[in-house]
Amino acid sequence: MSPIRINLYSDTQTLPTPAMRKAMAEAPVGDEQRGEDPSVNRLCEVVAELTGKEAAVFLPSGTMCNEIAICVHCRPGDEIITDRTAHILNLEGGAPAALSGASIWPLEGIHGVFTAAQLQQGIRPQSRHTPRSRLVCVEQTANLGGGTVWPLETIQAVAEMARTHQLALHMDGARLFNAVIATGIDAREHTASFDSVWFDLSKGLGCPVGGVLAGSAAFIEEAWWWKQRLGGAMRQAGILAAAGLYALEHHIERLAEDHRNARRFAEHIAEIPGISVALATVETNIVFFDVTATGLSAAEVSDKLKSYGVLIGATDKTRLRAVTHLDISQTDIETAAKALREIC
Amino acid sequence: MSPIRINLYSDTQTLPTPAMRKAMAEAPVGDEQRGEDPSVNRLCEVVAELTGKEAAVFLPSGTMCNEIAICVHCRPGDEIITDRTAHILNLEGGAPAALSGASIWPLEGIHGVFTAAQLQQGIRPQSRHTPRSRLVCVEQTANLGGGTVWPLETIQAVAEMARTHQLALHMDGARLFNAVIATGIDAREHTASFDSVWFDLSKGLGCPVGGVLAGSAAFIEEAWWWKQRLGGAMRQAGILAAAGLYALEHHIERLAEDHRNARRFAEHIAEIPGISVALATVETNIVFFDVTATGLSAAEVSDKLKSYGVLIGATDKTRLRAVTHLDISQTDIETAAKALREIC
Amino acid sequence: MSPIRINLYSDTQTLPTPAMRKAMAEAPVGDEQRGEDPSVNRLCEVVAELTGKEAAVFLPSGTMCNEIAICVHCRPGDEIITDRTAHILNLEGGAPAALSGASIWPLEGIHGVFTAAQLQQGIRPQSRHTPRSRLVCVEQTANLGGGTVWPLETIQAVAEMARTHQLALHMDGARLFNAVIATGIDAREHTASFDSVWFDLSKGLGCPVGGVLAGSAAFIEEAWWWKQRLGGAMRQAGILAAAGLYALEHHIERLAEDHRNARRFAEHIAEIPGISVALATVETNIVFFDVTATGLSAAEVSDKLKSYGVLIGATDKTRLRAVTHLDISQTDIETAAKALREIC
Amino acid sequence: MSPIRINLYSDTQTLPTPAMRKAMAEAPVGDEQRGEDPSVNRLCEVVAELTGKEAAVFLPSGTMCNEIAICVHCRPGDEIITDRTAHILNLEGGAPAALSGASIWPLEGIHGVFTAAQLQQGIRPQSRHTPRSRLVCVEQTANLGGGTVWPLETIQAVAEMARTHQLALHMDGARLFNAVIATGIDAREHTASFDSVWFDLSKGLGCPVGGVLAGSAAFIEEAWWWKQRLGGAMRQAGILAAAGLYALEHHIERLAEDHRNARRFAEHIAEIPGISVALATVETNIVFFDVTATGLSAAEVSDKLKSYGVLIGATDKTRLRAVTHLDISQTDIETAAKALREIC
Repeated sequence: MSPIRINLYSDTQTLPTPAMRKAMAEAPVGDEQRGEDPSVNRLCEVVAELTGKEAAVFLPSGTMCNEIAICVHCRPGDEIITDRTAHILNLEGGAPAALSGASIWPLEGIHGVFTAAQLQQGIRPQSRHTPRSRLVCVEQTANLGGGTVWPLETIQAVAEMARTHQLALHMDGARLFNAVIATGIDAREHTASFDSVWFDLSKGLGCPVGGVLAGSAAFIEEAWWWKQRLGGAMRQAGILAAAGLYALEHHIERLAEDHRNARRFAEHIAEIPGISVALATVETNIVFFDVTATGLSAAEVSDKLKSYGVLIGATDKTRLRAVTHLDISQTDIETAAKALREIC
Repeated sequence: MSPIRINLYSDTQTLPTPAMRKAMAEAPVGDEQRGEDPSVNRLCEVVAELTGKEAAVFLPSGTMCNEIAICVHCRPGDEIITDRTAHILNLEGGAPAALSGASIWPLEGIHGVFTAAQLQQGIRPQSRHTPRSRLVCVEQTANLGGGTVWPLETIQAVAEMARTHQLALHMDGARLFNAVIATGIDAREHTASFDSVWFDLSKGLGCPVGGVLAGSAAFIEEAWWWKQRLGGAMRQAGILAAAGLYALEHHIERLAEDHRNARRFAEHIAEIPGISVALATVETNIVFFDVTATGLSAAEVSDKLKSYGVLIGATDKTRLRAVTHLDISQTDIETAAKALREIC
Repeated sequence: MSPIRINLYSDTQTLPTPAMRKAMAEAPVGDEQRGEDPSVNRLCEVVAELTGKEAAVFLPSGTMCNEIAICVHCRPGDEIITDRTAHILNLEGGAPAALSGASIWPLEGIHGVFTAAQLQQGIRPQSRHTPRSRLVCVEQTANLGGGTVWPLETIQAVAEMARTHQLALHMDGARLFNAVIATGIDAREHTASFDSVWFDLSKGLGCPVGGVLAGSAAFIEEAWWWKQRLGGAMRQAGILAAAGLYALEHHIERLAEDHRNARRFAEHIAEIPGISVALATVETNIVFFDVTATGLSAAEVSDKLKSYGVLIGATDKTRLRAVTHLDISQTDIETAAKALREIC
Repeated sequence: MSPIRINLYSDTQTLPTPAMRKAMAEAPVGDEQRGEDPSVNRLCEVVAELTGKEAAVFLPSGTMCNEIAICVHCRPGDEIITDRTAHILNLEGGAPAALSGASIWPLEGIHGVFTAAQLQQGIRPQSRHTPRSRLVCVEQTANLGGGTVWPLETIQAVAEMARTHQLALHMDGARLFNAVIATGIDAREHTASFDSVWFDLSKGLGCPVGGVLAGSAAFIEEAWWWKQRLGGAMRQAGILAAAGLYALEHHIERLAEDHRNARRFAEHIAEIPGISVALATVETNIVFFDVTATGLSAAEVSDKLKSYGVLIGATDKTRLRAVTHLDISQTDIETAAKALREIC
């Protein structure tokens, strides 16, 4: 099989650029869990500022950002309300229950976005018999929803409903900057109503490792206890944080290119007979498409693409997901679309 | 307000009969957690026999039966698949996550009954990212589904699907004997495919306290460790077990009368203008009905009924639930239906 | 083997008296988890009054009383400080960790009683690396310590130290009334400094089942959520509560007799060659004694006693524990001591 | 205050060397959680080989190595037996209880090393009332014990006792290679009896981040599920793994120098009036010493040392701990000892 040259599997596949590697190699470092790593400290300050929160903490993964937030917000027996497609429900190994003893009540949103009215119906009445509704989680952008951007008004309506019922608010902002670039709205506005928020450094921003979780000073202090408990406290992590600082300076504006590429890809493949793609939902860097009408299964399409040096993953029996990122050029997009056309 | 004379709130409201009280008062007792209470031991033997399992353990509540079964079957990070209306999901305080670290994936069954095909779709692919599908839970009869009986073929198809995927099977048989009486099918046939099953003594069987959980000898031995941990190990519990032994002898056949009364009630109120009831779903002792078209809220109807000495609970804004049991006679049913007609 | 006529295994072995059975058989009952069981409600009021707390909740066992208190006081990662012999550490199946995610730091007290200075040394410095000290637990009387009574001054010193470090205080008062009778000091004085306290109905008080947990109204409201989660919410539990009400009226003063019998037993056996008993520690109804010098193992002594119709349990290789209670008369004591003399 | 030039606080304080930084900057990388990072894969192979296990997994910290091992070995209610000074008991935020629901039973070893006989006494009898003894944990070298090396015969005797009682065995080998160098005994011999073992890359080995956990293939597969759950699954972690590969080649033999420096330091300060150090216990790179007789508190001594540019941490009111590592030269040792002499 030919080697993969065009990797559209996920934006987590990005390799650090030479310039980013250089920034890492030269990073000033110290013991981050004693608060003495200057690169980690600087990254946390920058992220707190960007998200409009008092403080932030650097963690080895986005999953740990989500899980620590849940551990801090919830006690055993509490319930989290989120969309049925949410990462915390489907892709974190059942950690909310395993680590926090918290249940999840899934809502049937559209493309991963639910409304304030749906939220209201998901809130439990106060009763000793039921789980205790405690936390609302919004995923910006909604990954399994197709990279959908939560509109600011929806966020605000959901947040207001949550406040009315004394629920805490957490934003899984793994791809927050994709939403920022897609909408032209500042990160701070997206996150203003939330008690906690994090974004991933190792997706569209192109870093090798890590995410940063932000919130109030008291929240971050509690998060640190959990960082120790879960084994997320590292030592000279400035090596990794330096990549984050570099990315925040150089890799945010360019997300627009990933969005244009995703759009181009979607438009190209929409014209291939047998392929179905909901163009209106391609708002950022993720394209889901259905191959039922080609007579091939998603796995078969994925396999055939590999022989063209193109990697696109099957997410179920009939659908594939392509994700654009900084290792994908406009030419790659055209090559990939062409390969797909030949297959189908 | 007049006192409640006709209590249709739930079959948990039954009071012990004089004969049952006498059996309790005369019960031989010992230390049940040392295996020395003859009444508890006898009850467990009888239940193991009835359900076709090797052993059984007496517990202070049905919730503890469910939760201990989940603790034994599941490890943190595992996922339970059940209907969205299930008791374990909605009415046990989030205990599966709090006590076992297990998540619940809810299926959209019909009246609390899901199909093997739905189950199949709810089973996770093997992946380190997802919760691990581990246990299927069937609620017989389905309480919030309306006392619906799971047909034997559906149970068997679901069990076969579970086995194919190496999932364990638990039956929340709180009202198992209602299903037995409604179908004429032996308890052992209902439970044959299941690794664990329990039924409640304090619902239609009319006892004051307790449920009995049955399974293999190894399962019950593990259940005993959890009984100790959760504080379900009692002392001279033979007082309570004696009621169970009495009920198994005298209160099973008479459930047919509860079913007839529920049916009568449903038929009466179906004719009241503004009241909507799905007659076909009234299979056992539970009647859900909708009062939207009366112009009154469910809470208002419930309140007005109290002034007639009738208690029927509102389960949401438009629906009420009436449950028949051994303290409810045919005359009570007619009185209650009449009160409802006057109100609406 | 002759039947056991003199059961000194534990005060949990008491059988309900005919008068207590009568009180149970005639108890007015209702649905206790809806707050409608008059006997349960009355018992909770009486216990709240006796312990000087705002509210109380009836539970099926003492273990559940302890574990619910721990669940309410602690969050995962918290640490409980108590004596190395404590029931919660040794005899509750590891439930503090399993249910609350809380660790236990054991102190080396004397006969189960530790000092304020020892407590101080057990309190962790504030550090993100360590467990978080959160709760101090005092066991009154100290069971494995030999039924030792915590002196009021020790309790107060410990409580003051706990308060200084913002730690919560829980009293496992399983045998609180043995301490009350032994000291002549009111239950309210023993429990005054504590956030939560419970005592057992099924030990010296002679009831078949249950314990009652008391605390502030807010604490008890939280305890109720856990009672539901753990499966401790029952239905017509007034049958059991009636025994408790009876015992509080008739079985407290008579504990003095158990203490006299324990004392008599200890004095008798202290004179048997080869038996060693620390007379000064026999303060209530528990007598530990060592048989090393008899050349027999504890298990052998226990076995031989059975052939005399006497049951005394071995607690390790060289020690046995005898416990007096309302089914044990002065004559029984003398018979048991005589049997022991013949064996050794 | 003068800057710290001689940092004896801990071997976690090491900064990556230029050569190590170069290896990291040039590391081939991929998505490690998809098994596609060549540097991570290579590191895991090397570690499995070194420790004589089937497989290994790279993790962001030693705490995560310990906690994942505990999560895999234990179920809620299980008990871990280890020394009272163990890292898992004192310095991981109560994680064993919080994440696994497992309790810890502490033994009173000497300098962190307990015997097979002590272990035997710590094993619970089989009883439904007690926690269930499940796992023995050995810390090689014993950090808070003073860098003590567990003698091979002690390890083997403890392992045999554990096996006799069907207990699993885990080695917290944070400083395993210090023991290897101090004894001249291969890592594989130290770890042969253990089900799981890990060592730290970021202590004496001088890497910025990470530890590697090894065990059977089945154990590591389970560990991967927990790696996902806890948020330890990273992306292009080869950057970090490359440091590990470099260290295993270049930084193991040189640990002998750290040991000589620790020895030198201990011998120097043993001659300072008022300082007490147990020379016989200085077996590796850690030196605990007591300053009681100087009339100064440990904190005061630590503060004064800072003004000489020397950092040595106080571990309690009278003791300090100095740790040698690759950023500490023989000259540094002499300077530090001289500073200490001047202060005391």
